[in-house]
Amino acid sequence: MKIDIETLQSEIDALAAISEQPPPVVTRVLFSEADGRARAIVKQLCEEAGLALRQDAVGNLFARWTGRDAGKPPVATGSHIDAIPNAGRYDGVVGVLGAIEAIRALRRDGFTPARSIELIVFTAEEPTRFGLGCLGSRLLSGVLAPEAAMALRDGEGRSLEEWRATMGLAAQPLSSVRLARGVYSAFIELHIEQGSLLERENIPIGVVERIAAPATLRLQLTGVGGHAGALLMPGRQDALLAGAEIALAVEQAVMSTGRPDTVGTTGVFRIEPGAVNSVPCRAWLEIDVRDTELRSRDGALEQIERVSAGICRRRGVNCQIERLHVDPPALCDPTLVTTLLDLAAAENLPARKMISRAYHDALFMAQLCPAAMLFIPSRGGVSHRPDEYSSPEQIRSGVAVLAGGLQRLASG
Amino acid sequence: MKIDIETLQSEIDALAAISEQPPPVVTRVLFSEADGRARAIVKQLCEEAGLALRQDAVGNLFARWTGRDAGKPPVATGSHIDAIPNAGRYDGVVGVLGAIEAIRALRRDGFTPARSIELIVFTAEEPTRFGLGCLGSRLLSGVLAPEAAMALRDGEGRSLEEWRATMGLAAQPLSSVRLARGVYSAFIELHIEQGSLLERENIPIGVVERIAAPATLRLQLTGVGGHAGALLMPGRQDALLAGAEIALAVEQAVMSTGRPDTVGTTGVFRIEPGAVNSVPCRAWLEIDVRDTELRSRDGALEQIERVSAGICRRRGVNCQIERLHVDPPALCDPTLVTTLLDLAAAENLPARKMISRAYHDALFMAQLCPAAMLFIPSRGGVSHRPDEYSSPEQIRSGVAVLAGGLQRLASG
Repeated sequence: MKIDIETLQSEIDALAAISEQPPPVVTRVLFSEADGRARAIVKQLCEEAGLALRQDAVGNLFARWTGRDAGKPPVATGSHIDAIPNAGRYDGVVGVLGAIEAIRALRRDGFTPARSIELIVFTAEEPTRFGLGCLGSRLLSGVLAPEAAMALRDGEGRSLEEWRATMGLAAQPLSSVRLARGVYSAFIELHIEQGSLLERENIPIGVVERIAAPATLRLQLTGVGGHAGALLMPGRQDALLAGAEIALAVEQAVMSTGRPDTVGTTGVFRIEPGAVNSVPCRAWLEIDVRDTELRSRDGALEQIERVSAGICRRRGVNCQIERLHVDPPALCDPTLVTTLLDLAAAENLPARKMISRAYHDALFMAQLCPAAMLFIPSRGGVSHRPDEYSSPEQIRSGVAVLAGGLQRLASG
Repeated sequence: MKIDIETLQSEIDALAAISEQPPPVVTRVLFSEADGRARAIVKQLCEEAGLALRQDAVGNLFARWTGRDAGKPPVATGSHIDAIPNAGRYDGVVGVLGAIEAIRALRRDGFTPARSIELIVFTAEEPTRFGLGCLGSRLLSGVLAPEAAMALRDGEGRSLEEWRATMGLAAQPLSSVRLARGVYSAFIELHIEQGSLLERENIPIGVVERIAAPATLRLQLTGVGGHAGALLMPGRQDALLAGAEIALAVEQAVMSTGRPDTVGTTGVFRIEPGAVNSVPCRAWLEIDVRDTELRSRDGALEQIERVSAGICRRRGVNCQIERLHVDPPALCDPTLVTTLLDLAAAENLPARKMISRAYHDALFMAQLCPAAMLFIPSRGGVSHRPDEYSSPEQIRSGVAVLAGGLQRLASG
């Protein structure tokens, strides 16, 4: 398949310029002005590619190339274009703009699909605004109930419902987002690896067979504040110090499972009042724990909760622990995995099966239909940073296999 | 002396309503809109009390009751009206509005001063915007050089010089703020205790003879960020975890001096990027260490610096440590202390000598002239919190002794 990588790369670069921060930093938080402009660009590219657009009540975007047999469930592909603060230009974007180029390449090749091919641009794969990743695909798959989504609030206290009204998405209720199992015949997501396995082994294509199981905790610690000079040490109930011990306990818990695949991160750590001469009275932590094996992950999770409660008791700090979400690992569809490996071989591209340690919309799409993921190498395993990088040739390879997969699946 | 506590209390309550946050929270960060409105109210009260106003190039406000002998150095009093986020209504304010009422009481009493009496409302006693407390009194006393002040930047990267231009203070250079030693004959600051000694001993008046020596460190930690799922634990260079260890090491260092008076607080702790699925690549800490004894304070400071460097080396995190300021303790003027104790006795108010563990503008005014402080009880030792409280009767007592002090000192 002839992929026009020059055009695709220039589209990736143009989208990277749409950011809340100056280049090379990409920051596109859900519902920000930059997020809106980036969506507009993607919509325009979809229209130029002859795709029919639809948007659902949470902002998931569907761009369809209608097949000859409109009665059959379409083949789906897609990823996301939102980006955490200080991110790079490839995470998510390669799977969206790459899919548009895959569709254009199939058209140029004279292919006419039997089944429709549908690109999905998922809303908020990144958890930046609401502390919950994969908002769009969770709602699509029914893993997140609309009532639970309505209870979400961002750091400024604004609810998802308020944002939906602001963004003109409130004409339909959130409950309309959920899709029935079987609406799609298959889903393939193209993504950068966000690890360095493919680079180290010099393999251009990874086919994901399992997606690690993430869980997120939110802790609210309430101690007693006061003047930093006047409050003597023995009487203190310092929320920051409790939080500091907990962050170190997270590291300890995941390193003691005996499995290198268990990882734990305190990625959010805020304190109040945050003045140098005040003892911190409150702290908020958000902790991400993952493993490819459910039992180790849940063991670490329970240890973190137990140890945190003990630390707070000892320090006289009130501790509220909330499990924001605890997701099961996803198995990719074995037939689909084999198909993608075959297609890579047909393109003369070395490929291997692998595990995804990162969260992806495919994790939730796997609830709706057979799903799989294609990974391409990511330099140094770097992502969520401005220096995240995959080469044009690496992107071309991934898009070629994706196009092959869509062609194969949409043919029958 | 007849103090009109009803009027004074209503003025304190009215000023508390000027806040960046809803009642009962008082937040008035330097140069905020609330700070500006509070200044306007104080200026009006000074004018109504017949005081002549002047403002210097950093916004210190001087309100003078001109004495018969304008050639003699005036007696000064004053405090601050800025407030950290989530603060209360008494810290600083009692010394400003209380001084205005003391002056009004002296006028009502028919007193005419020989020396002028000057109220000083100091700019930014709290370090919220620039990470440096007592900005106004440091510049007045020459402890802070104008060049160093010009290098200050706030959390948004705006310099003091930019703010001075915005606030209409830039007509005079910063170097014009400094006053010569001997410009004032004495300085008395009335303040809430910010500790619970007076309350516990049921003593209405504390006369401060020594002010604890504070030092502030700023640490910038730079690790390596990345995706929380993809970066395995052994290779991590997590800036937050280094910061967490350092915050705990601060606690350890000050508790191991063997002196209960040594206190250490990590009051500022920010991380980047601050997303739940990202390994923190940067952390900023601000650490406040105090003691009434210089040697213990400096010993703890050095231990914190040494241990922080070791923690960061072990974790592969770059550590930049800056000593923002390291101030010597201040001795109050012994004659002034005796005078204030005598005046309290004359008002039938039990009084005691004590130590101030909190930072005050008097610490720097002591560089310019004989200085002392009057403390009144603060319920539960609470300050820098919305529930900070001193009763009207406690405030009345403090203002009565202050008025007596000003009368005595301005008579000759």
